[in-house]
Amino acid sequence: MLLALLQANAVPLDVATNLAVIDSAARDAASASADVLLTPELFVPGYDPERIHAEFDRDQLPQLREELAAIARKHGIALVYSLPRIDGHQLNISATFIDASGTELLNYGKVHLFGDTERQAFIGATEAPGVVNFLGLNVGIVICYDVEFPEMVRAAAVQGADVMLVPTALAHGFDEVPQVLVRARAVENHVVVAYANHCGVESDVAFGGGSVIVGADGGFLATAGTEATVLYAQLDADAIRASRKAVPYLAERRPELYAKWAEGRG
Amino acid sequence: MLLALLQANAVPLDVATNLAVIDSAARDAASASADVLLTPELFVPGYDPERIHAEFDRDQLPQLREELAAIARKHGIALVYSLPRIDGHQLNISATFIDASGTELLNYGKVHLFGDTERQAFIGATEAPGVVNFLGLNVGIVICYDVEFPEMVRAAAVQGADVMLVPTALAHGFDEVPQVLVRARAVENHVVVAYANHCGVESDVAFGGGSVIVGADGGFLATAGTEATVLYAQLDADAIRASRKAVPYLAERRPELYAKWAEGRG
Repeated sequence: MLLALLQANAVPLDVATNLAVIDSAARDAASASADVLLTPELFVPGYDPERIHAEFDRDQLPQLREELAAIARKHGIALVYSLPRIDGHQLNISATFIDASGTELLNYGKVHLFGDTERQAFIGATEAPGVVNFLGLNVGIVICYDVEFPEMVRAAAVQGADVMLVPTALAHGFDEVPQVLVRARAVENHVVVAYANHCGVESDVAFGGGSVIVGADGGFLATAGTEATVLYAQLDADAIRASRKAVPYLAERRPELYAKWAEGRG
Repeated sequence: MLLALLQANAVPLDVATNLAVIDSAARDAASASADVLLTPELFVPGYDPERIHAEFDRDQLPQLREELAAIARKHGIALVYSLPRIDGHQLNISATFIDASGTELLNYGKVHLFGDTERQAFIGATEAPGVVNFLGLNVGIVICYDVEFPEMVRAAAVQGADVMLVPTALAHGFDEVPQVLVRARAVENHVVVAYANHCGVESDVAFGGGSVIVGADGGFLATAGTEATVLYAQLDADAIRASRKAVPYLAERRPELYAKWAEGRG
């Protein structure tokens, strides 16, 4: 599977412009024979929780999803996109994995919201990270701050995830997230982790770019600088799974002890 | 608190030589005004699980513990040392934290054994990592392979750990453990992690050294090369705890969800 990752700058609340950026990247990625294009967190509306909360018209969501499916079909490429998602009277931050026919494979809602701004605009979701088989690889999704919690990627890995796709919106100045935590998630779970960030400034947030695709051994397969780009990495299920034999973390966990300790029985 | 960390080469089953190395390091560390000296996994008997299983006389354990307490008293320094520990008819790999009077503060048994050789010689312990207050800092212990499992340091961090002391015996060729996983444990839990390795060859295992002391922000406070050395780092409780305010991972975990998912209720 050839994975493509978009790092780009979005314009808050200008969905037409942001969809055009995704369309252009999908065309480039499809030309490069990529099978799937991963895009950043809330790229479709742009990352501005306060304005999304105040101004984003949730009635346009079905139409936006149809336009994103049309992009996938037009270029013949699967797509992971991120939108607000209706949760009762509130909104989640979500990501959706659609195949090249536009069919939804996975829909995930961010569990851990970051900071007061996100918590005022959204509600945290509560579902476990889903995992779906795609071209022979088990693909899971978490979003941004979620990946900083080891419990999240672990929850996907115990479901068999080979690859984690992580739309993010990481402000400038937190390099330890892609450089340390994302690599650790890869190593400790024997999974590939792709972490797709915004770049440039959106409203009052400066993003540092720095998107990465990390191999299951913790080595970088591709890294972005601070500018807009598309990263590529060829992923191989056999190679990923072979890394599990040398140090079998998942098999050698002792979850019955962890559960006991967490309940104070330990 | 000034922490000292010993990286050194042990001679398997030559406890007199290994105790002399600890004694010498304790003298140096105390001269440098260190409050505690951390030593590597199974440094007292040397790292050779097969020979420990076959040849180590467990009746000498009380005497060895008394000699280690005497070293602490003689130099006026607290000590973390690692010995086999009797568990029924079998042995754990353990680490013991004694204060400068030789009084035991903490005793921990390694939960995750690494590889067939360790599993043939030892049995994994089942207690949660303990945490004890020492000079105003909450100090926890895990051993070697344990630290590669995020669940272990998390279990100590939710008990309030500020500092994790990790005796290890990491063979050459696994640099991603100190360079990626140990740093991640520090960042994701806002704890200092000190990881004390052997160097040189013991029996048929070549150790790479590479011991580290990592700050609660993931930055290196001290790093060792491949040779024997003592590392030092000054640790400050206020600074460690301040790092928790910027990104409050421990407060923003959702353990009720993780538990639900682990039980398949997710």
